[in-house]
Amino acid sequence: MNIDTIINALHAVREQKPLVVNITNYVVMNNTANALLAIGASPIMAHSREEMAEMMSFSGALVINIGTLDSLWIPRMMVAVEQANNHNKVVVLDPVGCGASKLRTQTSRQIADAANKLIIRGNASEIIALAGEQGTSKGVDSTDSSEAAVGAAQYLAKTYQCNVVVSGETDFIITADRQIKLNNGHVMMPYVTGMGCTLSALTGAFAAVGEETGLAAAAVLGVAGEIAAEQSKGPGSLQLNLLDALYLLDEETLIQRLKMS
Amino acid sequence: MNIDTIINALHAVREQKPLVVNITNYVVMNNTANALLAIGASPIMAHSREEMAEMMSFSGALVINIGTLDSLWIPRMMVAVEQANNHNKVVVLDPVGCGASKLRTQTSRQIADAANKLIIRGNASEIIALAGEQGTSKGVDSTDSSEAAVGAAQYLAKTYQCNVVVSGETDFIITADRQIKLNNGHVMMPYVTGMGCTLSALTGAFAAVGEETGLAAAAVLGVAGEIAAEQSKGPGSLQLNLLDALYLLDEETLIQRLKMS
Amino acid sequence: MNIDTIINALHAVREQKPLVVNITNYVVMNNTANALLAIGASPIMAHSREEMAEMMSFSGALVINIGTLDSLWIPRMMVAVEQANNHNKVVVLDPVGCGASKLRTQTSRQIADAANKLIIRGNASEIIALAGEQGTSKGVDSTDSSEAAVGAAQYLAKTYQCNVVVSGETDFIITADRQIKLNNGHVMMPYVTGMGCTLSALTGAFAAVGEETGLAAAAVLGVAGEIAAEQSKGPGSLQLNLLDALYLLDEETLIQRLKMS
Repeated sequence: MNIDTIINALHAVREQKPLVVNITNYVVMNNTANALLAIGASPIMAHSREEMAEMMSFSGALVINIGTLDSLWIPRMMVAVEQANNHNKVVVLDPVGCGASKLRTQTSRQIADAANKLIIRGNASEIIALAGEQGTSKGVDSTDSSEAAVGAAQYLAKTYQCNVVVSGETDFIITADRQIKLNNGHVMMPYVTGMGCTLSALTGAFAAVGEETGLAAAAVLGVAGEIAAEQSKGPGSLQLNLLDALYLLDEETLIQRLKMS
Repeated sequence: MNIDTIINALHAVREQKPLVVNITNYVVMNNTANALLAIGASPIMAHSREEMAEMMSFSGALVINIGTLDSLWIPRMMVAVEQANNHNKVVVLDPVGCGASKLRTQTSRQIADAANKLIIRGNASEIIALAGEQGTSKGVDSTDSSEAAVGAAQYLAKTYQCNVVVSGETDFIITADRQIKLNNGHVMMPYVTGMGCTLSALTGAFAAVGEETGLAAAAVLGVAGEIAAEQSKGPGSLQLNLLDALYLLDEETLIQRLKMS
Repeated sequence: MNIDTIINALHAVREQKPLVVNITNYVVMNNTANALLAIGASPIMAHSREEMAEMMSFSGALVINIGTLDSLWIPRMMVAVEQANNHNKVVVLDPVGCGASKLRTQTSRQIADAANKLIIRGNASEIIALAGEQGTSKGVDSTDSSEAAVGAAQYLAKTYQCNVVVSGETDFIITADRQIKLNNGHVMMPYVTGMGCTLSALTGAFAAVGEETGLAAAAVLGVAGEIAAEQSKGPGSLQLNLLDALYLLDEETLIQRLKMS
């Protein structure tokens, strides 16, 4: 898990153009589909129970994002996780708003419990809330720093035998035995809706080619995001420039800009 | 209710970063979330009945937009209004397409009836249709000028004890005892979908910090929209430049450009 | 069906500003609404059964796109098709992912069967899958070239007495007795989600003013897309520039760039 992991994964996504099934929220469906296309993957935005067995049979990963959760979509998500398990595919869980309502906390845990191969990607507050009492702290709003969620992430990694990405000003990649910090990104990024959702979608693309830690996605989005932000006068431009930057990102630039420790 | 109202409200949104719950249509969810972020607020796009009590307990306002209405979403909207009432929060109603179908007219009236603290934001045809026979005129399409809807808006303000924003080439802010005209904006704005929806979302952000007339939102969007349109060769650019303009808008520019009477 | 067909149809859309009802997928609702506005039409994104009779009574065409299909939306689509038939309006069917799941293949056929006046717009794989055994080949992924789907399109045109647009690097317009090829567009276009969906939406706009072959829409999108792509460094820019290009497209440029045979 080093810089070669990232470079090789980016190369593999562009070569293999993996299909990624996304059950995500209404707000970001367009952005995340476009981000997957821009990096070279092939998004499938589908949620029907009737077709999920077929969809997972020929796709490389499943991304579940609970951003606009309701009681109709929960059973669809559970069927999708079951089919991902049946086909031995990674599930990326984005527990949007975990802690802000019981529904979100419970559903996040239900999905995390059900998935056999799991990556969790959340902001600090979501990761802390998902970990519950066992986390190092509790909270529902995004004022928690990602550092504050490292203990919670380690707890989740152990409990669910999964990898965890805590995104924020600093991103943490937490596996059973490793912890990596990334310091890319830009202060303008939180002014665009769905940046975290985009990271989760990209995590699915890289998982589909075998990079199952979330590291490559966080590195690529962090670097592309800071390139895009430097070219943007506001968040409208940033949303657009990010897709261009993902599309244009080359290995040299990625290596040069990467702040990993 | 003058220029200081607007300036203070803008300052307050950027300071307080109020949470605004939006039950809105699928078409504009991304745009309105981004507009709220760009102006400094914090959007929550949630609609589940199970979590609405929690969401309204820590949020500052509720925006209900019926743009892609169906029978599943109506009860969700009604639960949200009930919870907004329970927590003494303003409800902003955007009666999209009111008059174009009985379902939309009836649902708009049902929501307006239910909300304790209400702001209605619509185009002329919607406002006239919502007022029904008691309005000064009737109509369903957007060819009505906003002037033609002033009587209907006054009727609504009285009937529902609410404030009303009629948006169009001229925007009218109608309260129980005042009427303010705004002449900002740009002819290219109707070529971008969801400009009215964005105005309703921003109205929610300002209501959450105590500006409950809709004036600040209409002023800010009108000025930011005309700045953005001047920089745009078409509606694609405008959609992007608007978010940048909202993000960059400073008090001096706002005061200088404002056409209020 | 020649260049005058296209020019006259573009003129008519901008003159008449036809209302087009869209029951489409969550991913592209914003894009397709904006593309319809940019070309001069007026989008209605509505799906409720309760209002479909009213909506179709004053609209010019219906676009049905199954991109994020589920069991709740199928009956809504069928009611909409029934109402389009009642009002003698064209139905444009976009069978997104037809062949990727039984649900999509069956639903596509059910809609094609039900519509009295029909245009089908799909990529090669979707058209081949929709035609089933009777097509010249079979397939579910988008690696089929549009040439390979011409036989399937002719079969569909005959079976459903409809017109068919097969979009791809080359677009084919297939009617009962004609076949037209268009070679506009740009290799960057598939990196933006929903380009095909946008073509289907525009097909609805042109059908609403009497151009019921899909030719004008394919020509306009192909030319506007290549203009936009030439100005874009990546797919983010392209999505935006496309809307500007549709808005700005003039007859001279269209004639000059058109590669029709």
